[in-house]
Amino acid sequence: MPPDSTATRARLLDAAFEEFAEHGLAGARVDRIAEAAQANKRLIYVYYGNKEQLFDAVRAQRVGALFDGVPFTTADLPGFAGALFDHLLASPKLLRLGTWGRLEGAGSPIAETAQFREKIEAIAQAQQQGVITTELEPADLLVLLLGMVTSRFYAAHAVLDPATEDAWSPQCLHRHRAALTTAVGRLVAPSPPPDPTGAELSR
Amino acid sequence: MPPDSTATRARLLDAAFEEFAEHGLAGARVDRIAEAAQANKRLIYVYYGNKEQLFDAVRAQRVGALFDGVPFTTADLPGFAGALFDHLLASPKLLRLGTWGRLEGAGSPIAETAQFREKIEAIAQAQQQGVITTELEPADLLVLLLGMVTSRFYAAHAVLDPATEDAWSPQCLHRHRAALTTAVGRLVAPSPPPDPTGAELSR
Repeated sequence: MPPDSTATRARLLDAAFEEFAEHGLAGARVDRIAEAAQANKRLIYVYYGNKEQLFDAVRAQRVGALFDGVPFTTADLPGFAGALFDHLLASPKLLRLGTWGRLEGAGSPIAETAQFREKIEAIAQAQQQGVITTELEPADLLVLLLGMVTSRFYAAHAVLDPATEDAWSPQCLHRHRAALTTAVGRLVAPSPPPDPTGAELSR
Repeated sequence: MPPDSTATRARLLDAAFEEFAEHGLAGARVDRIAEAAQANKRLIYVYYGNKEQLFDAVRAQRVGALFDGVPFTTADLPGFAGALFDHLLASPKLLRLGTWGRLEGAGSPIAETAQFREKIEAIAQAQQQGVITTELEPADLLVLLLGMVTSRFYAAHAVLDPATEDAWSPQCLHRHRAALTTAVGRLVAPSPPPDPTGAELSR
């Protein structure tokens, strides 16, 4: 490979991220990616194989970077959820990329799987130490937590202020972030909340 | 309009649902919809205006049907979440349609907004009656709840059984459904769970 291949690859991945986030896998154009990266189109095929494989490479890179940028600790899962929320809020294209990936069902989500498995193991350990509820299996708990983190981006119109119709005001987001961390605290608390109706007993 | 316009419209909406769920707005072909509905393509334009408006009409119809099929009651939000989960599990195309809608940003999500507003008001009432926590604003609570319901569909690969690699086995889904209803119970319980670390006081 030529001496500048690392730089070219980085430019190609960056350009591909923009293109895939905007247009998805089917809608993306390899020509536009090459042009934006100021690279020869043939290099995409040399380095990555084809458009699908480039899509997978971009997803693996960005998912890795996302989780590297938001340290996971079972000692403060509400804090992790809040930080992940902040990160996604600052990078809306990341969620778009992930969403296209789901719809267009490309490749095996190897990056996510490894990232998730690590966290699931850490949750299991924290459960053994008694700092996280054992009412939920580690994998289910993680999935429910991630669902709460991302929900605001998927249902923004649900929380439209009827007066201003602005779901993205700093005030509105600040309130939701606080709600998210409170909710995650409730999700993972070692003891279940008291049930004043006694419904638990009759189930 | 001809006497059979109601039947034709229904066939067009059904065919459009299949086409949009599979290919999204940009990828959908009006020709294929007309052919599947055994209708003249021009009728789509007569009845719905254009492809975007047909997409909006399908979404409004299906979202309405979804929430009509899953009664909402603040007396049993875990039950509502479980029933919504079952409904989405039985109709994976519904979530695909909603996901395309988010990515392709079409039209105003009027159907969802009205559906959500109704539920937000009911949650506020239940909070006044003391049966749901007041720690969370009604809209935030609803969004977090919906995020938990849908999370399993968005992160299925997170919970792959390392042995079988099957995230959709009846056993796996049954366990997750139980986790979901437990988690929603924790989310909405009037009193917060006890905090053995006392961290609440130092915030």
